[in-house]
Amino acid sequence: MMITAPTDVRRITCVGAGVIGGGWVAHFLARGYDVTAWDPAEDAEEKLRRLVDAAWPALTQLGLAEGASRERLTVVGTLEEACAEAQFVQESAPEKLELKRSLLAQLDAATPAGVVIASSTSGYPMTDMQTEAVTPGRLLVGHPFNPPYLIPLVEVVGGEATDEAAVAWASEFYEVAGKSVITMERELPGFIANRLQEALWREALHMVANGEATVKEIDDSITEGPGLRWAFMGPCLTFALAGGEGGMGHMLDHFGPSLKSPWTRLEAPELDKALRDAMVDGCDEAAGDRTIADLVAERDQGVIDVLRATGRLPGQREGGQ
Amino acid sequence: MMITAPTDVRRITCVGAGVIGGGWVAHFLARGYDVTAWDPAEDAEEKLRRLVDAAWPALTQLGLAEGASRERLTVVGTLEEACAEAQFVQESAPEKLELKRSLLAQLDAATPAGVVIASSTSGYPMTDMQTEAVTPGRLLVGHPFNPPYLIPLVEVVGGEATDEAAVAWASEFYEVAGKSVITMERELPGFIANRLQEALWREALHMVANGEATVKEIDDSITEGPGLRWAFMGPCLTFALAGGEGGMGHMLDHFGPSLKSPWTRLEAPELDKALRDAMVDGCDEAAGDRTIADLVAERDQGVIDVLRATGRLPGQREGGQ
Repeated sequence: MMITAPTDVRRITCVGAGVIGGGWVAHFLARGYDVTAWDPAEDAEEKLRRLVDAAWPALTQLGLAEGASRERLTVVGTLEEACAEAQFVQESAPEKLELKRSLLAQLDAATPAGVVIASSTSGYPMTDMQTEAVTPGRLLVGHPFNPPYLIPLVEVVGGEATDEAAVAWASEFYEVAGKSVITMERELPGFIANRLQEALWREALHMVANGEATVKEIDDSITEGPGLRWAFMGPCLTFALAGGEGGMGHMLDHFGPSLKSPWTRLEAPELDKALRDAMVDGCDEAAGDRTIADLVAERDQGVIDVLRATGRLPGQREGGQ
Repeated sequence: MMITAPTDVRRITCVGAGVIGGGWVAHFLARGYDVTAWDPAEDAEEKLRRLVDAAWPALTQLGLAEGASRERLTVVGTLEEACAEAQFVQESAPEKLELKRSLLAQLDAATPAGVVIASSTSGYPMTDMQTEAVTPGRLLVGHPFNPPYLIPLVEVVGGEATDEAAVAWASEFYEVAGKSVITMERELPGFIANRLQEALWREALHMVANGEATVKEIDDSITEGPGLRWAFMGPCLTFALAGGEGGMGHMLDHFGPSLKSPWTRLEAPELDKALRDAMVDGCDEAAGDRTIADLVAERDQGVIDVLRATGRLPGQREGGQ
């Protein structure tokens, strides 16, 4: 049978209706899809509809797709019913490996051939979860951030038995469905964003454990500092601007020695030529046609916009001179 | 002699007029101060005025203080002239320990008694820099983020020979001058924000070095993911919301085991009762009167505001369904 093209998908099935699964339901409804949901919990429908109702004002602010409606949500009583006409399945069950394994096998059995089934897992590689499915080639990870209806990022990655075509289909579908997609070449514990976030988080825990900083100081140091830039310009491009007109190359040559400093408990890699080149080339590619001056202007305007949007311009804060 | 109260300061001296020093000049001018600057470079004045001119449109958008004017900048020819009538001195010389040591001793000799002298250093503890000064008690670190006229954070910390009163004075002064201040109890390599940022950065470098992610993927994973939240809610409070109504306590009990997972190269500390309590109490304190529901609403509204401000609502991006 022909698989529905990513742009033609109309019916999505969400399995698991907790915070993440319910967040997916809210997102897909807001993007104008018909959503069928199933969750084995007794009070799942009531909780799910409450979650969607709670999210709807935010989604309305974000901008609903044409025809989007909460009435396009159907909650059904069985997994088989949920999957029977699915054009895409998003699984968001609890993070237990055995549960995920058997659930994905059940979903595989109940879903029309070729339809892609994505897991929201943050903890397990698909290689370990797809072992019991009859057609594991269409199983992959589509890892969202909380709440899935507000944070655009989805990390897409297959397991060893996943077809490349399924990964490509899912990546395109999520983009069409309004997400920002990173398609990973290979499985990596923590994916990308969580690895970066986890490194920062562990350093924060060490600092609290050692009395070096308080929770409030840690949070303030990010929201009043680098966090203002990270909302719209990532850590690499941000650091490239510390190199002035010389960009990332100059930054690495100038600040490279600080990688030997005890500025965190994480040891840095050796800054050899290959790594230096990869960082410089990567920043050049990310910058595209934009000059350093363009990027500086973009950063500055972005910081101002974010400060204003969150009520923190000098005139919006109380006090100031 | 009586020291000027932080609220009564009118004349500020900036020593060193590169990117950071010049950024300070721009900030203090925009906040309505008279600024005297000195830098030994030949073309320092021309470069400095160009930097201030370039920053002025951004500062105008941020909102200028009453009476703020670029004409209130005076560039002088000697360090002694610069410091003679200073009510506060901000030093932003290159990061060389010997240079900082002798420069701070010179500034100490040239500045009226009791006036606080702050160093912008990101690399050296004041304990190591204040060794040659006659009155080291007024020397401390006031570490800004780039650009100092846009990013609010300043980390304030004294060295072993610094008077506590000077640290308190500087912390109050910076607040009055429109900065967000973290006053640290003790010296710590990398201070707070840079340690957190550096942990994330080193994990990113490892990932590029090992072909696990590209520069673009790293940057996108932050700007489209956790970075959206970090612009206004720090990593601790953000994670507390992953615990649902149970907050940080539930989050640590639930996700604590993931601290053993290989989700970053940085090993986590032991999550013992003391650390758990410190995190829970810290989040409770940071939350203040706000319930979990309040914080969730704040996070959601913040993400929407930041997305809108940076042109990333679904309707603002091209495409979408």
